[in-house]
Amino acid sequence: MYIERFTATARQLVDDVANEPSVQYPIRRWGAIIAVDVVEYSRLTIVDEEQTYHQYKSHRRELIDPKIAEFGARFLKSTGDGIMAEFETALDAARCAVHVQQGMVGRSSGEDADTQIVFRIGVSCGRIIADPEDIYGHDVNVAARLQTLAPPGGIAMTEEVADRVRDAVGLPLEDLGLHYFKNMCRPVRVFQYRFAAEAN
Amino acid sequence: MYIERFTATARQLVDDVANEPSVQYPIRRWGAIIAVDVVEYSRLTIVDEEQTYHQYKSHRRELIDPKIAEFGARFLKSTGDGIMAEFETALDAARCAVHVQQGMVGRSSGEDADTQIVFRIGVSCGRIIADPEDIYGHDVNVAARLQTLAPPGGIAMTEEVADRVRDAVGLPLEDLGLHYFKNMCRPVRVFQYRFAAEAN
Repeated sequence: MYIERFTATARQLVDDVANEPSVQYPIRRWGAIIAVDVVEYSRLTIVDEEQTYHQYKSHRRELIDPKIAEFGARFLKSTGDGIMAEFETALDAARCAVHVQQGMVGRSSGEDADTQIVFRIGVSCGRIIADPEDIYGHDVNVAARLQTLAPPGGIAMTEEVADRVRDAVGLPLEDLGLHYFKNMCRPVRVFQYRFAAEAN
Repeated sequence: MYIERFTATARQLVDDVANEPSVQYPIRRWGAIIAVDVVEYSRLTIVDEEQTYHQYKSHRRELIDPKIAEFGARFLKSTGDGIMAEFETALDAARCAVHVQQGMVGRSSGEDADTQIVFRIGVSCGRIIADPEDIYGHDVNVAARLQTLAPPGGIAMTEEVADRVRDAVGLPLEDLGLHYFKNMCRPVRVFQYRFAAEAN
């Protein structure tokens, strides 16, 4: 009973294609993914669970979710202390990430550094396996790993994303070189943006 | 537009309370959480993305999701290479975890160890903040961290869960002592179950 309900509702989380009953899952498509996470979320939760929840939710409601919508995400899921979203192009994904981090600079000014919410964002792109519940594949995993490498308040991305956005975004892109991530046999060349609000 | 659809459908993922329009979110409740994850998922995805996807989904469909339903989970979400689910009692959560790992022993026999899917499960309980989208709080974070400490094919749980299930489950529970998790200032005393299929 529960599973039927979960599955039926999860189906609607995926993009418009999911509403066509003729679609055979899983589908494969090209997409660009952002993984957004709160820096030191566990520590913030221990310091003040309620305040952390409400701060996080206000950033979601007033900044992140509107930007996700503005750049036309076709998939969105909550990861507890952040979100994962999929866009049609690397430029949409990167611009969304840049707008979120630029927006956070203004929102965080004057806040206590000890309890302030700061986001890290990872951006990747590639072939995605999508079903009614979630998105899967190597490049989805890479976005999640890149997020952990991003500077607090900043963005880390693959070389493929960097090549597609460097001229359009108009911000200095730093080359972090090759990085090995856990359980990934080949290194990933990482580029990053830093913003004024970063704590690192 | 996207956000409205996401929010409207995500609401139905949370338990029956979420269907009553009079509920004021977020709500606080006691709950027990399991975090289920695939060991070395990134490596398996690199070896064979399609095969890993289909193997994982068959374990979900034929074993995990039916067990989640059998033990009456009131919240379920996909974490990409696994799930997080919330139950009313620690015993429901622990029994669900035990049934899943026992079920995996039979399902994995004869498979190639290099491409075989093995799960780790973390179990915790405590006060939860729930809204239409997700569940939050320190004890939710602990379940995710415990999962990383569980032996492949096994279960790691907090002392509070262990105290509530040790007599009922009828399996030898090993005391792993105190563990410090990243960004958590106090150590967590961890207990574990091991099963025959474990790779470690």
